[in-house]
Amino acid sequence: MAFEADRVLKALERLRADTPRVHCITNGVAQGFTANVLLALGAVPSMTLSPEEIQDFVWGADALLVNLGTLDEERRRSIPLAMEAARAAGRPCVVDPVFVNRSRLRCAYARELLQQGPSIVKVNQAEHKALFPLHDPQTTDLPNDSTLIVTGLQDRVERGQECLVLENGSPLFARVTATGCAAGACLAAFAAVEENPLYAAAAALSVFNIAGELAGQKSEGPGSFVPAFLDALHNLSGKDIDERLKATTETSRRVS
Amino acid sequence: MAFEADRVLKALERLRADTPRVHCITNGVAQGFTANVLLALGAVPSMTLSPEEIQDFVWGADALLVNLGTLDEERRRSIPLAMEAARAAGRPCVVDPVFVNRSRLRCAYARELLQQGPSIVKVNQAEHKALFPLHDPQTTDLPNDSTLIVTGLQDRVERGQECLVLENGSPLFARVTATGCAAGACLAAFAAVEENPLYAAAAALSVFNIAGELAGQKSEGPGSFVPAFLDALHNLSGKDIDERLKATTETSRRVS
Amino acid sequence: MAFEADRVLKALERLRADTPRVHCITNGVAQGFTANVLLALGAVPSMTLSPEEIQDFVWGADALLVNLGTLDEERRRSIPLAMEAARAAGRPCVVDPVFVNRSRLRCAYARELLQQGPSIVKVNQAEHKALFPLHDPQTTDLPNDSTLIVTGLQDRVERGQECLVLENGSPLFARVTATGCAAGACLAAFAAVEENPLYAAAAALSVFNIAGELAGQKSEGPGSFVPAFLDALHNLSGKDIDERLKATTETSRRVS
Repeated sequence: MAFEADRVLKALERLRADTPRVHCITNGVAQGFTANVLLALGAVPSMTLSPEEIQDFVWGADALLVNLGTLDEERRRSIPLAMEAARAAGRPCVVDPVFVNRSRLRCAYARELLQQGPSIVKVNQAEHKALFPLHDPQTTDLPNDSTLIVTGLQDRVERGQECLVLENGSPLFARVTATGCAAGACLAAFAAVEENPLYAAAAALSVFNIAGELAGQKSEGPGSFVPAFLDALHNLSGKDIDERLKATTETSRRVS
Repeated sequence: MAFEADRVLKALERLRADTPRVHCITNGVAQGFTANVLLALGAVPSMTLSPEEIQDFVWGADALLVNLGTLDEERRRSIPLAMEAARAAGRPCVVDPVFVNRSRLRCAYARELLQQGPSIVKVNQAEHKALFPLHDPQTTDLPNDSTLIVTGLQDRVERGQECLVLENGSPLFARVTATGCAAGACLAAFAAVEENPLYAAAAALSVFNIAGELAGQKSEGPGSFVPAFLDALHNLSGKDIDERLKATTETSRRVS
Repeated sequence: MAFEADRVLKALERLRADTPRVHCITNGVAQGFTANVLLALGAVPSMTLSPEEIQDFVWGADALLVNLGTLDEERRRSIPLAMEAARAAGRPCVVDPVFVNRSRLRCAYARELLQQGPSIVKVNQAEHKALFPLHDPQTTDLPNDSTLIVTGLQDRVERGQECLVLENGSPLFARVTATGCAAGACLAAFAAVEENPLYAAAAALSVFNIAGELAGQKSEGPGSFVPAFLDALHNLSGKDIDERLKATTETSRRVS
């Protein structure tokens, strides 16, 4: 089955019907917006960070997001506990190694996390360069089974030999904080309802970015973009996806 | 005096005139929105958590909110200090035991707090069931003097033998993060200006929920709901309350 | 060169062209809104607090904001490290001693920071009174080289014998949380691109407050004010500044 609008819509409908719980270890800047993105989608967020409680929360969740923004001692202690609980419970885990290009400590920490085989890893170009200095994911410890997303003007979603290239989006995303972080939570929500992580990732990004396109048309700047974007996520229809989805398949990923 | 629109309006007018200071120990997801709800109402928020400073802040405040979301070590250390200062200063204290149904540790912690006799306790159905497993508040340590709110399609506000049933609200509240948490702060602000905690609680929820109804009519989804809701809180009139208030009195609370 | 609209516009244009990185140690309530204000302006925020990483982030930034809201142990440990890195790297540093009037500990802590000679210090009237009890900045340890801003109905920006009085603004700023905190970040962004800290401060406040005026005209309350304000910051033109700037020079600052 190819990656087409119908597959995106089916995943979105399943998400809205199942209302998956997504536990988010995310940075302080992103928490409120991330929770609102998940709720607008139809998922149920929780955000507790405390090492004493985190495993109870992950056991009660359907997916886990680990975002490394504002990484502090509490988060550093909780992340391995949360990932362990997610693995034991068979829940998908998304890792978003925010700003590994700005801190050597964080970059080293992120490399260790990747060895644990998260379902999905999302990086931008600068983070990709910091994490994978030889520009070749195969030289790192990222397990072949993990889905890797590299965001940019195009988003590339790669798993094994499969690769999807996505081209929806809005320039206003870059002018609103935590949009990338919230996209990470959206990945986790879709991974909870779509078993194929490559398709889960591509569906999540497509929904997120098409909602952004719709919001960009209705807004006068980054301020009015935020409410318009949440409304668009909440109201997104099959017709919106059908008319706008820009996704193509590549096969020769690691050569290109 | 029965609970009528006029009583709600009087409490709101007193709040706007007195601009009470509300110190909030609340979760990281809710802080920004909670502060904006208090400011839109006419109250003045503060949010410091540090055990070293918390008593100074509570002494300078007119009411205290204790919300257990994202409970961490700092919050666990500060909450008893803050509640002690509130008691010593004679300030009302609202406890919102968020997600006690998701963490055993948090549930045990919340039960201890309730023994200290907060003015108002707010729970949803799942939290109520976790805290009061026999479905009978009298079997718990919640002092009879405390006002208990159980939120849901109807909100029930109970104190001793008195019970008010409230039916205002908007389905979009469930699609925006921290609306329940912000309602807790609203309870604290009204408790600072209305001596009867049952009426303070009912007035707070009615104002909050009527503003939500007005916002729901003006918005296209959870994104545009947020600014519309804050505008509605800020602009709420006696006419709005008069036309919309749905509050009824029950007497046989703990039998029903 | 006098302080005129043209100087404000030049600084804003430089900011938009240079997209300076501003590292913010700020309170949990303000983080999201502050980041959005910086992005709407054209700057790039980062918000990490951890002592282990903070110096890497400050070295990679063009300016530093130190805001004392929700001061906790992590922030107390990181602030001196961050200020040391900013000094070593020659980056401007803005200190915003939020709520020093509500906590004795915080006031003592803030006095120590001021001895380190931050580029810009911003206080409101109550904070000014707490920090400088004799109402005379010269009796404190604030180095003469630092620029002091006292906000109020008028904002006074003072450095050495120079003083500018600014009168733009909107009453709705007082009804939205973290607007003062976000103004502090705006000061840091302008200090990164305008060498004269007095003019950087005056340009930053003027841009911020004129955007607030424009937003106030378009909004129906504090809720709709926020998106309108961010849009206005993003779209602010030379014509807006030219038509609205209210800035006058005083020379006899410390006598008045």
